Amino acid sequence: MTDFPNFFSKTFFLNASECNAQQIIPLPQLVQRLIDTATLHSSALKAGPKELKEMGLTWVLSRLTMEMDSFPVMDTDFTIETWVESINRHFTERAFRIKDNIGNTIGNVRTIWIAIDIIERRSADITALMSHVTPTPGVCPVQRQSKIQAVTNPDLIRRHRFSYCDIDFNRHVNSTRYIETILNDRDVEFFDTHSISRFEIAYLNEIHYDDTVEIARHSDGDTSTVEILRDGTAVTRCRIEYRSINA
Amino acid sequence: MTDFPNFFSKTFFLNASECNAQQIIPLPQLVQRLIDTATLHSSALKAGPKELKEMGLTWVLSRLTMEMDSFPVMDTDFTIETWVESINRHFTERAFRIKDNIGNTIGNVRTIWIAIDIIERRSADITALMSHVTPTPGVCPVQRQSKIQAVTNPDLIRRHRFSYCDIDFNRHVNSTRYIETILNDRDVEFFDTHSISRFEIAYLNEIHYDDTVEIARHSDGDTSTVEILRDGTAVTRCRIEYRSINA
Repeated sequence: MTDFPNFFSKTFFLNASECNAQQIIPLPQLVQRLIDTATLHSSALKAGPKELKEMGLTWVLSRLTMEMDSFPVMDTDFTIETWVESINRHFTERAFRIKDNIGNTIGNVRTIWIAIDIIERRSADITALMSHVTPTPGVCPVQRQSKIQAVTNPDLIRRHRFSYCDIDFNRHVNSTRYIETILNDRDVEFFDTHSISRFEIAYLNEIHYDDTVEIARHSDGDTSTVEILRDGTAVTRCRIEYRSINA
Repeated sequence: MTDFPNFFSKTFFLNASECNAQQIIPLPQLVQRLIDTATLHSSALKAGPKELKEMGLTWVLSRLTMEMDSFPVMDTDFTIETWVESINRHFTERAFRIKDNIGNTIGNVRTIWIAIDIIERRSADITALMSHVTPTPGVCPVQRQSKIQAVTNPDLIRRHRFSYCDIDFNRHVNSTRYIETILNDRDVEFFDTHSISRFEIAYLNEIHYDDTVEIARHSDGDTSTVEILRDGTAVTRCRIEYRSINA
């Protein structure tokens, strides 16, 4: 027996004021809730921000892959369940299940987290930190993320500068702001007729305050590949599959 | 005795992932929490979004004035208390008190809400809707908002286009995104040495998806006046007083 919970669950109420034009949770907000739930679980496992900070480390979300049947809707509860799928020397695989207000699973998520040195910004060995945590492998149905290809033939290129309100407590651009910037490639009417069915993002490098980036997109049917580049180097790659819906 | 609570209170936990570079709650996020708490109280008073929607109406935040000694800090609880200060034919005055995790009042807020017709976007008579609500006047120490002057002599003018992720469930720009746009006039280092002590905003007209606006700012010592203009007409006016702090 252990005092450390293998599974962790948290229920949220989705206020109207948080919703997007389609009256569902915005994807960046959902990712924020996943991060919050992961943070709470890691704290319950005594491997949270507090313990890492004492070692001069911080958790960084490296990859996220989600498959969604639908999204939490306005004025309802939704629940996020999370557990650790595997632990490696340099990263932790953490999975999530998202349930609607009647307990149906509406989405599954697979993420990779690394611990980095706050000063050096280099990946740290997490073996000792996670030695007491028991992973629960084989539960998450989401396929592992494959390498997201570079965008070689963009049909859209935009420039974007990150501002004060994009910066998080680590003084880097908040992970969810990368996603906002990517979704802003599309207009509001597009999302009336398209739902995100699979979303993959790989955070390759940190973006800082006042950085200006290029966002390059290649669309192929219902799939978009998006690359965020700074000075010609990819800092983030993303792949989005859409499903047509009735408006 | 009444079944309708005159006072309403809600406690929030401030996750690290929600914090800004100064490791406190971002102002837009705090305003979001105020709106959420107001919405919950109005629902408890049976004059919430549900009841208004049945009448073809929706609540719109028209003015907000806040005075802050300090802001909720990372990884702590904070509490928002709210009550109705006065009810008029065309608007409701609602006040808030913000308390830190040990119960000290750290801020006070005064707001004005109007109910508008969802289709016509015109202000509605709320007399019948609010007839059972008992206001509690004279509690909020914040001076009523005076008319915020136009910016006649700007020291900064920027252009900004509102995108998909700025749009709320009413298909207008989210109230908190106006505030983000205004704060983005300053750099991250400015907020290391300046805290917002008084913040006033008047929402004059709704901003829509794909609107491009001009943001004009006039700074005078520790006070900024900011105006958001669309096609030369003011859609929002804002006045911010800053206090110097030690970094």
